[in-house]
Amino acid sequence: MEKVSIKTHSRSEFIDITQAVSEIVQKSETREGMCYVYIPHTTAGVTINENADPSVRKDILNKLDNIVPWNGNYTHGEGNSAAHIKSTLVGSSVSIPISEGRLIRGIWQGIYFCEFDGPRNREVFIQIIKG
Amino acid sequence: MEKVSIKTHSRSEFIDITQAVSEIVQKSETREGMCYVYIPHTTAGVTINENADPSVRKDILNKLDNIVPWNGNYTHGEGNSAAHIKSTLVGSSVSIPISEGRLIRGIWQGIYFCEFDGPRNREVFIQIIKG
Amino acid sequence: MEKVSIKTHSRSEFIDITQAVSEIVQKSETREGMCYVYIPHTTAGVTINENADPSVRKDILNKLDNIVPWNGNYTHGEGNSAAHIKSTLVGSSVSIPISEGRLIRGIWQGIYFCEFDGPRNREVFIQIIKG
Repeated sequence: MEKVSIKTHSRSEFIDITQAVSEIVQKSETREGMCYVYIPHTTAGVTINENADPSVRKDILNKLDNIVPWNGNYTHGEGNSAAHIKSTLVGSSVSIPISEGRLIRGIWQGIYFCEFDGPRNREVFIQIIKG
Repeated sequence: MEKVSIKTHSRSEFIDITQAVSEIVQKSETREGMCYVYIPHTTAGVTINENADPSVRKDILNKLDNIVPWNGNYTHGEGNSAAHIKSTLVGSSVSIPISEGRLIRGIWQGIYFCEFDGPRNREVFIQIIKG
Repeated sequence: MEKVSIKTHSRSEFIDITQAVSEIVQKSETREGMCYVYIPHTTAGVTINENADPSVRKDILNKLDNIVPWNGNYTHGEGNSAAHIKSTLVGSSVSIPISEGRLIRGIWQGIYFCEFDGPRNREVFIQIIKG
């Protein structure tokens, strides 16, 4: 298993980790298999979405804030329940096929670490299974 | 890795791909393992839900439209931000166990390609890992 | 593949299955690989979230009820559309890395079976792939 460290800069933020994941897949010399990106945090997530126009990520973050506002009728004393809820809605892992030696993504797909309670130092775990 | 091509007919639609996925699992002659269904698009997703009463899928699509309306306060110029947001909420892959030579699903579970910005020609990637 | 049976006690409830999953991983004597937790039901799900303060789970369940109320403008005759919708939003599987012989989780992460239409007898399927 490989680990990638990242540093986030805002409360809510998408950080592109596509390149880091692709490089780990290449170094593994896997022809066919699966690549798993796992987030070991409960106030963050990971998603796959458009890598071209950054306004897409902005719209996703805005809508998540709209569905799950930071200030709400929450009971958790730390005050970051919204981040925990977003983590469950978005998910803490993505699974991406590896085929013919490379990570198989759609042409518009990037892999994004989703910070929901930053800024923080975060980790991403990457596990590869050969098929 | 196998690919399945599908054609969608509406903006929002669930298309049953259970049979196509099951056949690929059977052809692979896998006794124990995992089957991954991966969507290489950023305005679509994949989910597992009830295969009996079609009103369940209708209610899911309606509620998603209600949470993420097509017309909203979005910045992305293409006008399909709602589809990108639904893709992140629903997810772009499902992972299903294979055991004793067959895809293990609950009796009421079907696998659905989720179109959020159709009609379009779409692809579904299926990767199998033997355990 | 291993199966774990659980009994839920309310309509909406998070049940901690971390210990059961960890034990199955340990018994499998896997050094490197992946562990999949799969829910064969369409009115339940599985998520990873905070294992310390139980108010976090309460806030997640409350917000899900707020986004997807039990009584709504649904067409499905059984009356449990809200549970089906939550199942699609939360997801029916989680994928967790195994490394150096143990399930790799963040220190605050627990694995929770998410009941959305209980009380019922439920099953959880656990598949392990060695890497």
